[in-house]
Amino acid sequence: MGKYPVSPLAPEKFPDLPVIKGVRFAAVEAGVRYADRLDVMLAVLDPGSVVAGVFTRSSTRSAPVRDCEAKLRKVSEAGAAILVNSGNSNAFTGSAGQESVEAICAAVAEAADVPKGRVFTSSTGVIGERLPHDRITAKVGELVEALDEGGIARAAQAIMTTDTFAKGATREIELKGGVVKIAGIAKGSGMIAPDMATMLVYIFTDAKVSRDALQAMVSCHNETTFNAITVDGDTSTSDTLICAATGASGVDCDDSEEFEAALKAVMKDLAHQVVKDGEGATKFVAVKVTGAAHDADAKRVAMSIANSPLVKTAIAGEDPNWGRIVAAVGKSGAEADRDKLTIRFGEVLVAERGWVAPGYSEEQAAGYMKLPELVIGVDLGLGKGRFTAWTCDLTHQYISINADYRS
Amino acid sequence: MGKYPVSPLAPEKFPDLPVIKGVRFAAVEAGVRYADRLDVMLAVLDPGSVVAGVFTRSSTRSAPVRDCEAKLRKVSEAGAAILVNSGNSNAFTGSAGQESVEAICAAVAEAADVPKGRVFTSSTGVIGERLPHDRITAKVGELVEALDEGGIARAAQAIMTTDTFAKGATREIELKGGVVKIAGIAKGSGMIAPDMATMLVYIFTDAKVSRDALQAMVSCHNETTFNAITVDGDTSTSDTLICAATGASGVDCDDSEEFEAALKAVMKDLAHQVVKDGEGATKFVAVKVTGAAHDADAKRVAMSIANSPLVKTAIAGEDPNWGRIVAAVGKSGAEADRDKLTIRFGEVLVAERGWVAPGYSEEQAAGYMKLPELVIGVDLGLGKGRFTAWTCDLTHQYISINADYRS
Repeated sequence: MGKYPVSPLAPEKFPDLPVIKGVRFAAVEAGVRYADRLDVMLAVLDPGSVVAGVFTRSSTRSAPVRDCEAKLRKVSEAGAAILVNSGNSNAFTGSAGQESVEAICAAVAEAADVPKGRVFTSSTGVIGERLPHDRITAKVGELVEALDEGGIARAAQAIMTTDTFAKGATREIELKGGVVKIAGIAKGSGMIAPDMATMLVYIFTDAKVSRDALQAMVSCHNETTFNAITVDGDTSTSDTLICAATGASGVDCDDSEEFEAALKAVMKDLAHQVVKDGEGATKFVAVKVTGAAHDADAKRVAMSIANSPLVKTAIAGEDPNWGRIVAAVGKSGAEADRDKLTIRFGEVLVAERGWVAPGYSEEQAAGYMKLPELVIGVDLGLGKGRFTAWTCDLTHQYISINADYRS
Repeated sequence: MGKYPVSPLAPEKFPDLPVIKGVRFAAVEAGVRYADRLDVMLAVLDPGSVVAGVFTRSSTRSAPVRDCEAKLRKVSEAGAAILVNSGNSNAFTGSAGQESVEAICAAVAEAADVPKGRVFTSSTGVIGERLPHDRITAKVGELVEALDEGGIARAAQAIMTTDTFAKGATREIELKGGVVKIAGIAKGSGMIAPDMATMLVYIFTDAKVSRDALQAMVSCHNETTFNAITVDGDTSTSDTLICAATGASGVDCDDSEEFEAALKAVMKDLAHQVVKDGEGATKFVAVKVTGAAHDADAKRVAMSIANSPLVKTAIAGEDPNWGRIVAAVGKSGAEADRDKLTIRFGEVLVAERGWVAPGYSEEQAAGYMKLPELVIGVDLGLGKGRFTAWTCDLTHQYISINADYRS
């Protein structure tokens, strides 16, 4: 904690998140791995809440992820709870992993008076070490005592690992039936040796929405928000997004386009913050691909560019190295025709029709690359497929964080 | 050239490559981009030679690659020539690219007295700038004059970009019909801004072998040699492997397992040298995957580990961070069962049955990681699929070379 400076891309401050009626938060110092820091958060949802989620597709996903997936398959509107610890990911811990999850869920269910099947847990931190769940269960009583409608900011702190800033986002919309609020928190590409980057996201709303509608919205927009960002192409065993709707506003949002748009905006905002806190990041980069044969090809090209170490180091060096963009398009596996390709850095037309653009000025492009937020535009000239990915640059700091951590 | 120190993994010296009867070499300083360095090589093959090749699958591949592919589709045993320049890749140069290729091929065909359809060219270096082919064609007469059976070492130098050492490999085998020799040269993951890593490989043998048999051998073993290495997962627009057999030994090798094994050994040797000269490399790493459901899954897992920035930075930091191996297995998309996974660093058993191994000593593993050449063993415990990939670590030097090149 605090070993690395706050990302230069961090927002000025943590946003003022509104109270979401029907959910209360608490956070404590449980000493899961480190002393003197918030490392466990609890959120308790009133009866009538619905919960949706999406998770890492890793085949080595952690015990808490497997447990959440199983529980979310059952539709219920009983009260529910979400407990998250940092410091230990409870991943690759054999059968002991599930035992820890069960112990925590039992303790929370009893103390918070919710069914065990409605307690969801996440863990992030060191991998392959048994989770000392006694340290967590010992604090559950204290957590329930401390539950508070205004506790979400402390919860955002408790889930951080080596994140350099806490991440929050909110939207408020006025619909015919009244005001609906959404508030979300996330942790991003932090690192606790010997663990990998893990993304955890929790979004709460007082919208009245069915579980199926909420799950559909979350699954759909996950593809163009959290699944459209990449720091280093590595996927965690623990990535989790849980979205809970308490219904306390009484405003029916099952078919509300405005609500769906606001939910997506919160997801996108949090996803961007995760990239902006990417290890060593100094540039925030949108890779906008258009003109692909179809959307799937556009995504393939966008992620190929966004994950290319050669592209990402060039951006770190503020080098308008469009040759590396051409190479990343070529290796993507998507349908592409060299002679129909157009590349732009922001408004600067770089290449078209298989060659550098006639009016291209390297000086102008190099000037553009000095900005902290960049747009790389690639048009394949083939069809209507489009996809935007977000990434950051690859810097010496990334190597320092990941190679030198123990030294 | 010479900006970066010679790789610590470089062999002690360039090998003594034998004369291959039926092929002669020359190299000159043509000033394609830089003065005072060898930058064009020519190899001329006697009539009766057969030529095979494999090329980048990039959809934005360069004009020389497209030209070679087309010519190799035609079977011929006429004399042939291979001309390679460094300094400019002639990639993404629109229709001017093909014009340059044609101009060079015409000049070589006339001076070396071979059919135009049997002149193969490669270019490596800056992308998107018109190849100043006049500088090359002006030197073709001089090149042909200088052709020499013993010129292969100078040819190996002429194709280097920011390679820190020239790469050569050889094998000699005694068969019933006589001795057969193989000699190969390669350039690897060098970089000339604003270009991407390009791999070029040329292998010569005096074996008597049909074009179809040679092509089959090269295509087959390419999968487990050059297609099994990765420095950063980026694919060039120019990657080329050409293998030519002059037949001068008179020894029929169409069905010779010994010849095929020797050819594979040369390919593997050169592939390993390319990794050992990977930008910033300080460790050479074999990733051996066994027990996969099938070979394709084994390759998926091996390349997922070998391309993971988190794994590669951990290796740079000499950190036995097996959690990152687990994560890379999980994200590979291959069939995997966490509880059947076994991980070894060299002989050190790290994890088995879904958890850290009972006798695992972190100290012992950390000691192993200090070696310059490492083996990461992963057994999936599912079937008989196996694949070995080779990679290097990801260091500050990689970032320096690729981000700071222009500064």
